[in-house]
Amino acid sequence: MGFRLSRYLPILQWGRSYNGSAFANDGIAAIIVTIMLIPQSMAYALLAGLPPIIGLYASILPLAAYAFFGTSRALAVGPVAVISLMTAAAAGNIAAQGSDAYIMAALLLALISGGMLLIMGLFRLGFIANFLSHPVISGFITASGILIAVSQLKHILGIKASGQNLIEMGESLWSGLSGFNQPTVIIGLIATIFLFWVRGGLKPLLMRLGLKERIATIGARVGPVLAVIAGIVIVAMLGLADKGVKIVGDIPQGLPSLEVPEFDWPLWRSLLASSLIIAIIGFVESISVAQTLAAKKRERIDPDQELIGLGMANIAAGFSGGYPVTGGFARSAVNFDAGAETPAAGGFTAIGIALATLFLTPALYYLPIAVLAATIIVAVLSLVDIKSIRHAWQYSKSDFAAMAATILVTLIYGVELGVMAGVALSILLYLLRSSRPHYAVIGQVRDTEHFRNVDRHDVITLPRILSLRVDESLYFANARFLEDVIYEKALGSDKIEHVILMCSAVNDIDLSALESLEAINARLKSAKISFHLSEVKGPVLDKLKRVHFLEDLTGKVYLSHHEAIEALCENPFDVEMEFHL
Amino acid sequence: MGFRLSRYLPILQWGRSYNGSAFANDGIAAIIVTIMLIPQSMAYALLAGLPPIIGLYASILPLAAYAFFGTSRALAVGPVAVISLMTAAAAGNIAAQGSDAYIMAALLLALISGGMLLIMGLFRLGFIANFLSHPVISGFITASGILIAVSQLKHILGIKASGQNLIEMGESLWSGLSGFNQPTVIIGLIATIFLFWVRGGLKPLLMRLGLKERIATIGARVGPVLAVIAGIVIVAMLGLADKGVKIVGDIPQGLPSLEVPEFDWPLWRSLLASSLIIAIIGFVESISVAQTLAAKKRERIDPDQELIGLGMANIAAGFSGGYPVTGGFARSAVNFDAGAETPAAGGFTAIGIALATLFLTPALYYLPIAVLAATIIVAVLSLVDIKSIRHAWQYSKSDFAAMAATILVTLIYGVELGVMAGVALSILLYLLRSSRPHYAVIGQVRDTEHFRNVDRHDVITLPRILSLRVDESLYFANARFLEDVIYEKALGSDKIEHVILMCSAVNDIDLSALESLEAINARLKSAKISFHLSEVKGPVLDKLKRVHFLEDLTGKVYLSHHEAIEALCENPFDVEMEFHL
Repeated sequence: MGFRLSRYLPILQWGRSYNGSAFANDGIAAIIVTIMLIPQSMAYALLAGLPPIIGLYASILPLAAYAFFGTSRALAVGPVAVISLMTAAAAGNIAAQGSDAYIMAALLLALISGGMLLIMGLFRLGFIANFLSHPVISGFITASGILIAVSQLKHILGIKASGQNLIEMGESLWSGLSGFNQPTVIIGLIATIFLFWVRGGLKPLLMRLGLKERIATIGARVGPVLAVIAGIVIVAMLGLADKGVKIVGDIPQGLPSLEVPEFDWPLWRSLLASSLIIAIIGFVESISVAQTLAAKKRERIDPDQELIGLGMANIAAGFSGGYPVTGGFARSAVNFDAGAETPAAGGFTAIGIALATLFLTPALYYLPIAVLAATIIVAVLSLVDIKSIRHAWQYSKSDFAAMAATILVTLIYGVELGVMAGVALSILLYLLRSSRPHYAVIGQVRDTEHFRNVDRHDVITLPRILSLRVDESLYFANARFLEDVIYEKALGSDKIEHVILMCSAVNDIDLSALESLEAINARLKSAKISFHLSEVKGPVLDKLKRVHFLEDLTGKVYLSHHEAIEALCENPFDVEMEFHL
Repeated sequence: MGFRLSRYLPILQWGRSYNGSAFANDGIAAIIVTIMLIPQSMAYALLAGLPPIIGLYASILPLAAYAFFGTSRALAVGPVAVISLMTAAAAGNIAAQGSDAYIMAALLLALISGGMLLIMGLFRLGFIANFLSHPVISGFITASGILIAVSQLKHILGIKASGQNLIEMGESLWSGLSGFNQPTVIIGLIATIFLFWVRGGLKPLLMRLGLKERIATIGARVGPVLAVIAGIVIVAMLGLADKGVKIVGDIPQGLPSLEVPEFDWPLWRSLLASSLIIAIIGFVESISVAQTLAAKKRERIDPDQELIGLGMANIAAGFSGGYPVTGGFARSAVNFDAGAETPAAGGFTAIGIALATLFLTPALYYLPIAVLAATIIVAVLSLVDIKSIRHAWQYSKSDFAAMAATILVTLIYGVELGVMAGVALSILLYLLRSSRPHYAVIGQVRDTEHFRNVDRHDVITLPRILSLRVDESLYFANARFLEDVIYEKALGSDKIEHVILMCSAVNDIDLSALESLEAINARLKSAKISFHLSEVKGPVLDKLKRVHFLEDLTGKVYLSHHEAIEALCENPFDVEMEFHL
């Protein structure tokens, strides 16, 4: 056992064999990701309701922290769309957008959710994320994509609008619609169309021009930078800033100052719930990306260490004027495709962004907000996953219900309630399903030792013996259901002398179910019916033995159901059989 | 199908064959229950913080309503200890004890919880009660018994005290202790000791005097009436009311007036949560009693109709100045032992109590409150069930944890939080358990077609093939766990070419688990390992077929695990085996 530092600092593992070739590959990947990340970080900060510079700040130290503590060799952390939207919702509950208190709330969300992730990692609580079911995550991301796209329409139109959900946003957009700014709309629409084309058409074009597929893929991913440059040049040259086109304007030059945020308990407390949701959603997004990329290279991700890595990244964001970050899919894929070999690539990207904040910000003065909004809209519409909705509908109505509820509640009531409603409904539906388990009266398949559902198979039963199989662990929510089923089946016929419950699918029997089995035993006893069990699993049998249940049982426990039937059939008068065809 | 009135009005079923013999038996039972119920109803009203007459009111129309709508032939409804305590807690949140608003709140709790029960019955939602696990109910009743006994100490001591939980009650009792009233303490202690003796010693004594056991049992149950009569006589003769002994005093004579309570939405809304808890706890208590007694006579209880019966009883309580009622164990047992044959016995009891409120109340003027408190204390201490706590500890630590949490939270924070904490913890523990299911690497038992855990049995495995059995349905909370297990086992050895997942205990696969199976399939494929399933249940296989999972599967689905091994073993070079002993 013993404490090993390198478990908590993966850099000590990959760092030992770091060499010139890895350095070159990481360096190239870092340059490409940096180019992609500069407009993206600013755009997502905008989505979070924060000044664009905050997005750049959130792309420096957090990346460096992840490079030290993370296990994924390709994951690129930083601001992402969904978490930015959640930050806007949470900080918007505390203060008005644009105020210092709002910026402080965003920063504290990073710090608190980082602390939560760190604690979850140290206590190996990563499994908490498992309670976010696939339909909930999928539905949540689809709904978030729609919300984000709609939230950016105001920037494309050059109007003011607000709202935390689709209804508020729609009303706000509608009432401001007439005040749209013509040059902004033109720039916004052209940028949007261009970026859609970059997404679909640039890669084939580059390949036709003779580039290799991998290079063409990377080229298409950094394509949005062209829109940014074109936007800056056009606005600057045509003087559109004076014609109402909103621009990024002055960005404070220089690195973020390191500051310890003030500890104000009431403020912290009011951010706890939001921080937890941001932490868990961020972790789920990040770990999915990391595992997808690791699988391609047959590497393993350690989820608990990922919690620590992501936690440290967010804590770093909190101490350096940033806001919540996580691993994003698009940038991680670019990082991976560009050949990043180790987390050092993230460290080099951090240096790249730091250099940009030092020297590049004046060049971004004329960058139109509408172009940033267009990059967001085009990026997030790929999150909207209609196929998944159809897939869920086909596969299982209860999964579909959880997904639909998550989408609707997210759209109508906002992101936090959306996630919570989805999780609650998933758990409720699961409990309901397991509270009315599948069961079957079973009979013997002719000339075999197998027993199957009398309704589905050609089997033989004896009128004296009722054989039942229940396909679920027995616990409080289904214990009484089992009682009802057995009473109905067993007390319904006068001929029945034995009830055998086949427990091959019973993985656990809790105390409530034990009480029900005792009640069934007593009730059947008073009706002069013996109660037997068959195929009880070892651990379950151990538990039953501990409380002397078997001593009170009117019947016996048989290893196999066949054995039970044989033992109970020794009565020579028993020649009557029933055939189920 | 069609609507049948007699389904909703069971009186139409048993009423048709009602005859003189049933009438005589029901009548005798009613007289005995009436004698028992008069002091008990007043005592429980006191416990609920209500004037004693409210307890009598709650024992008239509700009993008549249950006689029409209930299915149990022995159940006696009326005020009970636990529900009275819950009424005190809920009404105490709305108004001060003794105020008109408090009495109105208690009445509305009956009406609202009655309406909820009725709706649950009509929509057949009785299964909701199943989510109260046995440890939660048992722990809750034990803790309630302690709280109730402590709450009555003030009446035995003749002091003022209050509090909703053990800590508040303890502090309040302690600070008022010095003001105790000597005659009250003497009466209270003698009554308590006498009642304890009645409980344990009266029945043997009556049997020694030659009474039959059944009669002796009934005699012991109505014994508390002796204490009531003695208390009245002593207080009246010694003039103790002037020496500080609290007495029942003037009780308004006559039947309750029928009134439709005012509809005040904010007030109703503030009572909704409490009403739901009272409805569910009341239903669980009532149905347990009804089923226990029905089992003795091999009768069946219809839980959905019981909801309707209990709902109508509570609605009747709400319209006739009562408070929440339910079926009580002690009085139902007396009713049963005294020979009640039909719900008509309850109707006759209602007439008995009505006559008492008309003519008997003046005789109760000098009844000391301390004697009523003593009857409560002696009655509820039998609810404290230490054996169950030990039993839970022996059987399962997680059931014990749920029980202990329910007891502690109920004692420290009161009844409502206690129940909620217990339910939440039960569900959480169940989810946690099923999120880390039991699994086993399995091998073939020599010379058989059976496969068992390699760690527990003497089995044979092939190094090329990994056979895994998972003992739980696959769903969102354990899907990723399964992935981790399979990756760890399968990617840990270079020799493995096939992974077979035995699904005999998998009763369902939800969408999240399907995604995980797809991920496992893809990941193993890239490692050149085929992924197979065996013993997949029919309904699960149907679902998998619907989404074309089987087409993408690198391996096959085999009916039995043995078949899978045989099919994958045809390779003639495969002679290597491993033996697990």
